[in-house]
Amino acid sequence: MSLAHTLTGRHLIAGEWVASAGAGVRAVDPATGVPLEPFFYQAGMAEVEWAFHEATEAFRQTRSLPPEGRARLLEALAESILALDHPLIARAQQESGLPEARLLSERARTCNQLRMFAELVREGSWVEAVIDTADPERTPLPKPDVRRMHMPIGPVVVFDASNFPFAFGACGGDTASALAAGNPVIVKAHPAHPGTDEMFAAAALQALRETGLPIGMFSLLHDAGPEIGAALVKHPAAEAVGFTGSLRAGRAIFDLAAQRPRPIPVFAEMGSVNPLIILPGAMEERGEAIADGLAQSVTMGGGQFCTKPGLAFYVAGEPGERFKARLTERIATTGATTLLNASVAIGYREACGRIRSAPGIEILYAGDASGFADFTPSLYQVSARLWREHPELREEAFGPSALLIRCDSLKEMRACVETLEGQLTGTIHMGAAELQTASEFAEILSARVGRLIFNGYPTGVEVCHAMVHGGPYPATTAPQTTSVGALAIRRFTRPVAWQNAPDLLLPPALQNANPLKIRRMVNGEWTDRAI
Amino acid sequence: MSLAHTLTGRHLIAGEWVASAGAGVRAVDPATGVPLEPFFYQAGMAEVEWAFHEATEAFRQTRSLPPEGRARLLEALAESILALDHPLIARAQQESGLPEARLLSERARTCNQLRMFAELVREGSWVEAVIDTADPERTPLPKPDVRRMHMPIGPVVVFDASNFPFAFGACGGDTASALAAGNPVIVKAHPAHPGTDEMFAAAALQALRETGLPIGMFSLLHDAGPEIGAALVKHPAAEAVGFTGSLRAGRAIFDLAAQRPRPIPVFAEMGSVNPLIILPGAMEERGEAIADGLAQSVTMGGGQFCTKPGLAFYVAGEPGERFKARLTERIATTGATTLLNASVAIGYREACGRIRSAPGIEILYAGDASGFADFTPSLYQVSARLWREHPELREEAFGPSALLIRCDSLKEMRACVETLEGQLTGTIHMGAAELQTASEFAEILSARVGRLIFNGYPTGVEVCHAMVHGGPYPATTAPQTTSVGALAIRRFTRPVAWQNAPDLLLPPALQNANPLKIRRMVNGEWTDRAI
Repeated sequence: MSLAHTLTGRHLIAGEWVASAGAGVRAVDPATGVPLEPFFYQAGMAEVEWAFHEATEAFRQTRSLPPEGRARLLEALAESILALDHPLIARAQQESGLPEARLLSERARTCNQLRMFAELVREGSWVEAVIDTADPERTPLPKPDVRRMHMPIGPVVVFDASNFPFAFGACGGDTASALAAGNPVIVKAHPAHPGTDEMFAAAALQALRETGLPIGMFSLLHDAGPEIGAALVKHPAAEAVGFTGSLRAGRAIFDLAAQRPRPIPVFAEMGSVNPLIILPGAMEERGEAIADGLAQSVTMGGGQFCTKPGLAFYVAGEPGERFKARLTERIATTGATTLLNASVAIGYREACGRIRSAPGIEILYAGDASGFADFTPSLYQVSARLWREHPELREEAFGPSALLIRCDSLKEMRACVETLEGQLTGTIHMGAAELQTASEFAEILSARVGRLIFNGYPTGVEVCHAMVHGGPYPATTAPQTTSVGALAIRRFTRPVAWQNAPDLLLPPALQNANPLKIRRMVNGEWTDRAI
Repeated sequence: MSLAHTLTGRHLIAGEWVASAGAGVRAVDPATGVPLEPFFYQAGMAEVEWAFHEATEAFRQTRSLPPEGRARLLEALAESILALDHPLIARAQQESGLPEARLLSERARTCNQLRMFAELVREGSWVEAVIDTADPERTPLPKPDVRRMHMPIGPVVVFDASNFPFAFGACGGDTASALAAGNPVIVKAHPAHPGTDEMFAAAALQALRETGLPIGMFSLLHDAGPEIGAALVKHPAAEAVGFTGSLRAGRAIFDLAAQRPRPIPVFAEMGSVNPLIILPGAMEERGEAIADGLAQSVTMGGGQFCTKPGLAFYVAGEPGERFKARLTERIATTGATTLLNASVAIGYREACGRIRSAPGIEILYAGDASGFADFTPSLYQVSARLWREHPELREEAFGPSALLIRCDSLKEMRACVETLEGQLTGTIHMGAAELQTASEFAEILSARVGRLIFNGYPTGVEVCHAMVHGGPYPATTAPQTTSVGALAIRRFTRPVAWQNAPDLLLPPALQNANPLKIRRMVNGEWTDRAI
């Protein structure tokens, strides 16, 4: 199957490619700084209204449809994305500067993600059907029949992320989980890769047509500024927001949503510094191997991962010196990366400037910039004492750099780690005889992170049932959720209970006969049998 | 066992009964308007700091303790509450005006709730342990071992509700579920029943002492105004808020929490009008029985239930006239109730005034007020057309009244129901041959409510696994949760993942041997076996 799509620069609203009046924008090739064709229209309020109207109507039609249709939609979407074939990779490469190999593996992950949710939806138990049957004889009051399950909520606004144009893009994790739960999606395209987004929208349209679901289930709107994003978040018909990006943008969206007459949840993943702790025994046993692994994790994808380890803590001493030398050498010999876009490049330059001007900073390797957005990595070091005094050294530097925190003792390291705010991840490298110390650090870190990694590196987020890609604020605005893994579907649902409902009026997941053959809790026991 | 507690008027902070400087307040007997002894101190910022300091320290000590201790704490708390014996009932009766029989049954529910959570915690599967084991041979990248579970979050602020001084009181559902999840609790006492609260605090202290858990796990602070509540919500160490009460207060707390430098979730249950729909067939078959049931549901507990059916929709006609006459008669012959406190009485008087002054309102029965806060119930009626034009007729009237909406047709009734905002409950009365019509209304209502009831009444919230006591805003600020039933525990947790952790560093729930013998998802399959 092949899906040829010629870019139009238009929005997709309910199956129509829509040109709007007014200004527009072109993507820019970050490798050259040259603007790319075509010109992309910026949406206005009319397009916002139209998209929500169609999404609301689509939701009305599909809310109670059997899950099979949604599973087929997700699978068809994965197929359509593959059918976009090389032109998708080529366009994404042009717009993001990311290399082909990376985009191919990201495409695989994106399709796997869609298929994982298809499987989850088809299997069906994710709705958490719980049934308490009646007891009319109970005294003093008869016990009613109560049954609950998770239901979709309605139109979800998804902000496409710049650093994963596929996996967190227009048909990435947020869209996949929102559709899987049964919700229509309105995507705010990313101005840095609008062409990639348009191609994904074409894939979504093709998948909707193939599966016969309402085409209002997916819309895509372009805008270079914040206006349309804000209008989407504030629209009365919006029920939730998915976002991956900067703390500043994420918090602004969260604030808008909280200030609505009817507040809605915002699932914003806003990155973090992902502290990595090297215990003395680990340093002694394999400090240089850790240096190699850390260098790779810091520079992978130009350091533009939400899970990039931005801070590494170690205890001063001879093994630490060898680690530092090795890491410096690795960083110094890593080539330049083209950063995603001018805005990321500017932000990274500022972050490096902030670090370099902090008192007591040692510049272990000063990366430099060339071309439009090409950077070689940088490595900094500071004493634990100075790090604790300078809050600006806790901020994320989104790009290929890391900051080593040299501690005088384990005690000082512990004192540092105890001051960390919410993080997506935390990593502990421990030696063979450091179980007790590692346990103490695990206790401190697990209260602050979404995922705790041992003897590894945080980059690379496995898409699996158990994954948590989340964490306390400021890593996210919704610490009780994850944006990767099976649990991500729950963000876009709410529980609904039926009391004393006639069997025929119950959703199939709650009917006595268990027609979907799902695992349910019946009177406190899990079973897949009928009642 | 007996627990004698003489009221002190003091706060409880980490086991100490604390008197604070400055102003104070007395409870008032709503049956007489007479202030009650003793004088209760109002907390200041020093008490807030102290309570959080102790809560944070208690959390540090208990966060990773085995669940058995928490189960025993909840059971001991239920025992201590019973041990408070008649003086608790007598004080609550004096402070709330609620009759003894109601308080006895509410006490039973409160203790059952604590025991249900104890059972849930001891059984242990509620943590949703999910394990994906490693596959080092996978290409292109080895698959890591990832394991997740729900973990407690830290100090939870609980606002005690006025209308259920036991079940949603200082040791009610929010406190029970927060403690069950492993969190310390700081309760803001309700100024209408501070003595009842103090007795519950004494029970909590006794339970903490008996089970040897840190006494900082539970504190109780008094305040007559909003200052201490606001300070608790804004405190940097607070992690979540549980609240049951009015829309105005709930929204104010939500706004404060959203505006924090680090926002925290607010689980506010703010009531609703709980629409009840009577389909024509049901009206024909048993309109008078429905009138009897509805009258009881409206006036039960003085109509001071979050789930009181405040609006009832029916189609005009002869059976409807008979229903209306019967309902009016039932309402007219229901005796007076003492409302909970002066503030509830004032609010109810205002709400009735608002309804009575709306154009086209028929006053079917005008209840009246006597004494300090004694009201007989009222019944109003309005046409569907006028109801749709007057948004003030959608607001909750917290007290013993209901508003009938007379529709000219089923179509008009459907049009009304489609305009309803979020509700805790919706109820449908259907006749034997109305499956199709009921299904259409169920579809509309289930998108707007937390719980949908058939041929019954919404008052009386069963504490069971399947219960949902929640719903879209403005019923709650957190539609994805429930404040009653087993699922309520999830509000005060967040998922944490461990990647490639040595078995000994994993929480017991995630260890290979499954020492807690809980049900876990291992590589996509649910099992209670070891790995």
